[in-house]
Amino acid sequence: MPNETIRLLQSHVSERDFTGEPVADEVLDTIVRAAQRTPTHRHGQQISLVVVRDAHTRQRLYEVTAGPQPQITKAPVFILVAVDFHKTAVAVKAGGGEQHFHESLEGWTVGAVDAGITLATLSTAARSFGLGAVAIGAIRHDPQPVIDLLGLPPRTFPIVGICIGKVNRPAQLRLKPRLPLSTYRHDERYRVDALTPDILSAYDAELLAYWREVGRPDGVPWTQRVQPYSTSIHPETKIIAERQGFTLAE
Amino acid sequence: MPNETIRLLQSHVSERDFTGEPVADEVLDTIVRAAQRTPTHRHGQQISLVVVRDAHTRQRLYEVTAGPQPQITKAPVFILVAVDFHKTAVAVKAGGGEQHFHESLEGWTVGAVDAGITLATLSTAARSFGLGAVAIGAIRHDPQPVIDLLGLPPRTFPIVGICIGKVNRPAQLRLKPRLPLSTYRHDERYRVDALTPDILSAYDAELLAYWREVGRPDGVPWTQRVQPYSTSIHPETKIIAERQGFTLAE
Repeated sequence: MPNETIRLLQSHVSERDFTGEPVADEVLDTIVRAAQRTPTHRHGQQISLVVVRDAHTRQRLYEVTAGPQPQITKAPVFILVAVDFHKTAVAVKAGGGEQHFHESLEGWTVGAVDAGITLATLSTAARSFGLGAVAIGAIRHDPQPVIDLLGLPPRTFPIVGICIGKVNRPAQLRLKPRLPLSTYRHDERYRVDALTPDILSAYDAELLAYWREVGRPDGVPWTQRVQPYSTSIHPETKIIAERQGFTLAE
Repeated sequence: MPNETIRLLQSHVSERDFTGEPVADEVLDTIVRAAQRTPTHRHGQQISLVVVRDAHTRQRLYEVTAGPQPQITKAPVFILVAVDFHKTAVAVKAGGGEQHFHESLEGWTVGAVDAGITLATLSTAARSFGLGAVAIGAIRHDPQPVIDLLGLPPRTFPIVGICIGKVNRPAQLRLKPRLPLSTYRHDERYRVDALTPDILSAYDAELLAYWREVGRPDGVPWTQRVQPYSTSIHPETKIIAERQGFTLAE
């Protein structure tokens, strides 16, 4: 039953071992145009991309991104997906109004969701050409240098990035295990007790086995992987968002 | 050069004229599994779906969603994409900690971006089977009844929904025009002056021509379409998010 697109989606792995070979202009153009075709909330088109190929700029982006994420320097293309309420503000003003939407949590949420839609489409389009791709969420954890480096104006924010390029692949594809489908898909109503201690233990063991298989003895079980959620908050996200005009008071 | 997946992505239109025919279980299962394979920030898997097929529940969802959005009752399948920090909280607790990540804007942003990635993948997967799909962002504008109806626990939130099903299609595909690529794709640095008054006027005219072509004389130019951004904020998004535990103080 699966078609070519389903096979592509169901074989998704994040790939980081970029060869560094450049991506052809027409391929990159096709990938970007596919992303622009995605829907946006209320057809607001509140997304812009900054396509970075310059090695010096990628080096600087690497330096300000926690991780470390050396793939930013290794991949020939880094694309920043920015929420962009600058363009809508220009259009609102042209129509005689003044934009306040970006000052609400709803506006921020619209932008973040649209950025996610865009990211997934960039990734799927790149992978359809046989390229590898990996998302870089950490690009927003120290946003001010990114804003300065890429010249982002007020009412925009660097939400997420993606590295794209040709990659070295292991001989055998290994899919990273997910939590059981029963904890992800709920039919008709959410089942609060879907994630039991037994399921959690079994998944921890499954993930550890995966790490061993792919030669990553430093890999940790999922309950350990999410421990930083007990403290991590990355306050710069909110501080710099406010500075860019996303006051989110309502 | 384009492959099957690129053709699918570049022909994207939001479709609402659902026939009501049911979606086969194995097709729906394949679509959901494709979505679960998408990456999540830090492999946190902070997303859950609620698959709604029950006609009464879809009727209720329709009643609490602004629009109006009759496609929620017409499409045989509605899938809610929820940000879900309940599962991570269970895992953090199992590891001896207590989760605070969901109380930060960074946590909320992670969830919204991951929800967008999930939505795009659900849409692409459904469309690869020839089905139609349309996103429903307005599902979060009056979130409390949605939370109650679908039984969403604390630390979860209904971010966005999608209607999926067989659709009636016009004889000729018409792609809704986007702003010029020069305002969407920036190379190396954002160009603040990319969206000029001339470009805006030309795009308004292009969009009006599109509305006429598709027989929608009520369609408006873009500068008019975004006018609600001068006031619209949907305060319930923030109020109910806080009630669900997303305090976002930092």
